Amino acid sequence: MRIVIDAFGGDNAPLEIIKGASIASLEYGVEITLCGKQSVIESVIAENKLNFFGELKIVDCEDVLTMHDDPTSILKSHANSSMGVAFSELKEDKADAFVSAGSTGAIVVGGTLIVKRIKGIKRPALASALPSPKGSYLLMDMGANADSRPEMLEQFGVMSSVYLNKVMGIENPKIALLNIGSEDTKGDELHIEAYKLLKANGKINFVGNIEAREVPKGEFCDGVVTDGFSGNIVLKTIEGASITLFSLIKKILYKSTMNKLSALVLKKDLYSLKTLMDSSEVGGAILLGVSKPVIKAHGNSNAKAIKNAVRQAKTVVENNIIGTIAENI
Amino acid sequence: MRIVIDAFGGDNAPLEIIKGASIASLEYGVEITLCGKQSVIESVIAENKLNFFGELKIVDCEDVLTMHDDPTSILKSHANSSMGVAFSELKEDKADAFVSAGSTGAIVVGGTLIVKRIKGIKRPALASALPSPKGSYLLMDMGANADSRPEMLEQFGVMSSVYLNKVMGIENPKIALLNIGSEDTKGDELHIEAYKLLKANGKINFVGNIEAREVPKGEFCDGVVTDGFSGNIVLKTIEGASITLFSLIKKILYKSTMNKLSALVLKKDLYSLKTLMDSSEVGGAILLGVSKPVIKAHGNSNAKAIKNAVRQAKTVVENNIIGTIAENI
Repeated sequence: MRIVIDAFGGDNAPLEIIKGASIASLEYGVEITLCGKQSVIESVIAENKLNFFGELKIVDCEDVLTMHDDPTSILKSHANSSMGVAFSELKEDKADAFVSAGSTGAIVVGGTLIVKRIKGIKRPALASALPSPKGSYLLMDMGANADSRPEMLEQFGVMSSVYLNKVMGIENPKIALLNIGSEDTKGDELHIEAYKLLKANGKINFVGNIEAREVPKGEFCDGVVTDGFSGNIVLKTIEGASITLFSLIKKILYKSTMNKLSALVLKKDLYSLKTLMDSSEVGGAILLGVSKPVIKAHGNSNAKAIKNAVRQAKTVVENNIIGTIAENI
Repeated sequence: MRIVIDAFGGDNAPLEIIKGASIASLEYGVEITLCGKQSVIESVIAENKLNFFGELKIVDCEDVLTMHDDPTSILKSHANSSMGVAFSELKEDKADAFVSAGSTGAIVVGGTLIVKRIKGIKRPALASALPSPKGSYLLMDMGANADSRPEMLEQFGVMSSVYLNKVMGIENPKIALLNIGSEDTKGDELHIEAYKLLKANGKINFVGNIEAREVPKGEFCDGVVTDGFSGNIVLKTIEGASITLFSLIKKILYKSTMNKLSALVLKKDLYSLKTLMDSSEVGGAILLGVSKPVIKAHGNSNAKAIKNAVRQAKTVVENNIIGTIAENI
């Protein structure tokens, strides 16, 4: 198996990306293709004495698509960027899966228009496993589509179900619809219609609406289906609320000498709490609905997050997620 | 000034509601009308030796509208419930403002269709001050309208601005639009259009889009304008994320004897953190856009939260928020 990696995507590129690729390659026995400036990639590998399983392939390209570039530029002016070239490798069957920590918008555009959709899929969407005290749950769409239609949400339900079953090993996964009330008549037009479609779909174990309050607890279901706008809001609100609370707690722990001493005792446990809620532990987001595996790692991914994204890519390939989605649509 | 209170709305009714009304009445010098079963109200007052400023008025009614009732039943089958009667008192000018901790949906329906809209207002919406480390910020609409149009969001901006200025004393308050990206071209159709209208409106100090990640920090703006669906999602996600984190921290503090000893030292500070993030400190939500002050206290309001909601009602009356909104629409 070969995974193509955009070596210049993300805040910590290329060092952390290449390091993560090396670790994953050796640990999971997958071959790696790195796209980006060859001279830089080679010196990072030499300076850090990095090794790779099998044959390492480097595809040289000068250009990089940044977070500030128009996402659609991946199709034209930035077609030869590290991400654009990585998409070409995937499209031309030179790799089995794709990983990038670069621009989410460009990954959605590239996945949809270069790699192309699975037949019958209305719109691909991003699914991400989020941490909770009760284990992780899948959130889909986490922001690939600003505007959604009810039929799209129904398909997100089917795709989530396949992913949860095949990749996360959950038997008959419970799927809920994010809504502003738990009763079946609640919500705006989009969600009232989506509820009906999800309920009527025999391929989904649909357990009804879930309110946002219940989402971070991770108790109610295995997968949360949402339109991309609300999904993005939930994801970022959890992030913002956690950052705010942790920064306030940190202030308390450093407030006085007595507090500092107490903090020493609690340090390890509080740190493990931060790790528990840390999304880099879970892996990247996957663009489901496209005809090959496309993994989007978090923009600030370190080597560990990239390693986990590669593991995720490998699991997706091994379990034939794409084929199973195609069969179920 | 007289405030009419639905004595039987909310999880802790009638005891905490009546207690809160008594405390507020004495502390702020406002007269109170209590709606609900007179015999129960009288025995609560007697048993708890409660006093009131000026003349206490009790309007006897048997019926109570619960959280499970259809909100529109406030207009018909539950028109004579404690909430319905309280709305009548307000409508007939027998009180200057209304407070209830009952069903949000029924308060929106009653406010809109019994009390009626301010001329020119498309849809009333709920505004609520939320706590943050940097002081409180206003979120509007927090869920009165499931479906929204761009012009509604523009009016939420104007109403938020008036409220922040007149009630919270903020000069030229900064208003932002909740969106899934900070650039002005981001979002779904609704938010792209709303952005243009807010930017073009000379009565608002519009500072652009705010991402959900920034909302809980409370740094970027004084007021967050949002459609009711997203507003409800933000509000409940913050609640859910905070509950989840606090429960995990609590587990850590009780994990071992050493942890318990350290927890004793930190207890007071951690408790003050919980208070800081506690919405009962800030007051209730206000239904802006209706022709008289309607305050919705949190469903699980205790006496303190009711007291704060009455204070808020008083400030709204004293500063003629309704008149100023009418002038600015």
